Amino acid sequence: MPGSLDVRVTALAGGIGGARFLRGVLAALPDAEVTVIGNTGDDITLHGLRICPDLDTVMYTLGGGISAERGWGREGESFVVAEELAAYGVGPAWFGLGDRDLATHLVRTEMLDAGYPLSDVVRALCERWKPGVRLLPMTDDRVETHVVIADEDGQRAVHFQEWWLRLRAAVPAQAIVPLRAETAKPAPGVLDAIGEADVVLLPPSNPVVSIGTILAVPGIRDAVRETAAPVVGVSPIIGGAAVRGMADACLTAIGVETSAQAVGVHYGGRGRAAATPAQAGAGSVEGPAGTAEGLAGTAEGLAGTAEGLAAAAAGLLDGWLVDTVDAGAVVPGATVLARPLLMTDLAATVAIVRSALEVAGV
Amino acid sequence: MPGSLDVRVTALAGGIGGARFLRGVLAALPDAEVTVIGNTGDDITLHGLRICPDLDTVMYTLGGGISAERGWGREGESFVVAEELAAYGVGPAWFGLGDRDLATHLVRTEMLDAGYPLSDVVRALCERWKPGVRLLPMTDDRVETHVVIADEDGQRAVHFQEWWLRLRAAVPAQAIVPLRAETAKPAPGVLDAIGEADVVLLPPSNPVVSIGTILAVPGIRDAVRETAAPVVGVSPIIGGAAVRGMADACLTAIGVETSAQAVGVHYGGRGRAAATPAQAGAGSVEGPAGTAEGLAGTAEGLAGTAEGLAAAAAGLLDGWLVDTVDAGAVVPGATVLARPLLMTDLAATVAIVRSALEVAGV
Repeated sequence: MPGSLDVRVTALAGGIGGARFLRGVLAALPDAEVTVIGNTGDDITLHGLRICPDLDTVMYTLGGGISAERGWGREGESFVVAEELAAYGVGPAWFGLGDRDLATHLVRTEMLDAGYPLSDVVRALCERWKPGVRLLPMTDDRVETHVVIADEDGQRAVHFQEWWLRLRAAVPAQAIVPLRAETAKPAPGVLDAIGEADVVLLPPSNPVVSIGTILAVPGIRDAVRETAAPVVGVSPIIGGAAVRGMADACLTAIGVETSAQAVGVHYGGRGRAAATPAQAGAGSVEGPAGTAEGLAGTAEGLAGTAEGLAAAAAGLLDGWLVDTVDAGAVVPGATVLARPLLMTDLAATVAIVRSALEVAGV
Repeated sequence: MPGSLDVRVTALAGGIGGARFLRGVLAALPDAEVTVIGNTGDDITLHGLRICPDLDTVMYTLGGGISAERGWGREGESFVVAEELAAYGVGPAWFGLGDRDLATHLVRTEMLDAGYPLSDVVRALCERWKPGVRLLPMTDDRVETHVVIADEDGQRAVHFQEWWLRLRAAVPAQAIVPLRAETAKPAPGVLDAIGEADVVLLPPSNPVVSIGTILAVPGIRDAVRETAAPVVGVSPIIGGAAVRGMADACLTAIGVETSAQAVGVHYGGRGRAAATPAQAGAGSVEGPAGTAEGLAGTAEGLAGTAEGLAAAAAGLLDGWLVDTVDAGAVVPGATVLARPLLMTDLAATVAIVRSALEVAGV
């Protein structure tokens, strides 16, 4: 494990929740090399413009351009173009396309049309925003999450954004499918960033349509499974409800209960103790990790039984951070640590990041 | 000649000057069926968006959306997207891309990408703007005017817009070429609109890069030559200078003097007297037309000599309207009428239109 000055952190991330968590990562580890693997399954083409909501949310948030009030889109945003499109009768009206944001889409679309892969485009956009992380799309290939629904118009698949924004995820999802994910290749640098990391983090992003979509790109799940780095996730569910967004609707669609424990079990434990400096080289699976023992006042669940390990065979997590209200959650094959998880401000977020690093033994 | 209620007017038009003149046409003939054949040689693709400055200027001007101050672009325009593009270091900075205007380009580009011809796109856009005319692009094919220049970067061709906006037409044009015009086809309705008109008007648009480009589309010049309707042009040059824009630089490039007479001679006379109700059926070329005789106080030039007719063999004009300061101008083969031509307000413009109709005998 290298010194904290050059610790390599790799995080998978969706939009708002992931971006806010990453702000805490940068504050907690100002000298770390942070790589973010961003979800592109939410991407959509509107008015001929390629829009990457999650990548942009991370870029704007870490680059100082995000709307503090909304958590997405640009600070000081205007919507003149959107009003004009509406005056032409051109929809959809349910997508909030801001003027400032639109410039990003114009630059991106022009570069994509010129033949640049998305990862090059993201790098070019980040030259302006300087987010302080290396931001990689999960893939340069086009993957779009669609949702199978049934309403008065019959059963059909709609783009994730339509389900999320227009329908507010109120129409039950019969299936959530990251289209073309199965043939997508991880973008350059993605697998190495996971394999060479000192710690891999799963922020409190949507487990289905954000983290789940990233993991659906062949090779990424295996890389997380196989990395030598500890893998720690942060629950987006607190007390049986999503902290933000409508993750419950997504979890229901894939048959997972909306609870911190259920999401942890869904990710699954890797079945080895979190690596800590004290335990470096210890390959055996054992009881509560050394660091966890010192965490007075927090609840921990740890997989130590053969039964738990079997259930965790294909799991990802060494550590799982749940809120204190979810103390007692058990994820076979992973160390569970309960700490306050509401990212009410940067200090609270930094504390959460430190807890995640703690359970990771970093 | 039908009654004024359903008189069919067809005008070729560039941008600002043409649009203002057309406003006068609609005011002078509120019940006329007006078809406008718009120049698309100024069109340019920027940031992946297809931009049609002249068509939009006509559409916005007649539809009530034009900036009164600038004469181009939208009233109440903002430039947020342009500022953002600049922040990304993405140019060009010399093209004023407004937010409201940009929505038009988005709709147009999306429709073009979907396979609609430009004429369908224009019709769709006009459903919102209701300009009161039938607006047709000169062609659905891509024609772009380029200008050959030579400066410190050597001899090269630049897009007309770069020469016009960035270089302010201050670098001499060695040639002005409407690229691909020679293989372009007139858009649907264009030739019929000329052939079936009761009067064809050439507004005071740029004779080279606006009217000249339209006439460069094979078939259009012949249609104007052959239409049974009187063809009347309005000089964009007053007292040896362009009223607006930099038409002088364009005229110099094609070896035409910047004078009302020279532009008229450049268009050329058709070599027949302007058709008037009194002269209907009179195919012979004769002296000053009946209507012109009554115009006390104005100067007229008229082609009546064999020499003039020979020079006008390939000409377009039956009538040519020049400003009073240019009284005495002679265009072989056409009736020249001198009247105040400054479009200072709508009333003045209406008077100019009425003069044009007068010389046309409508």
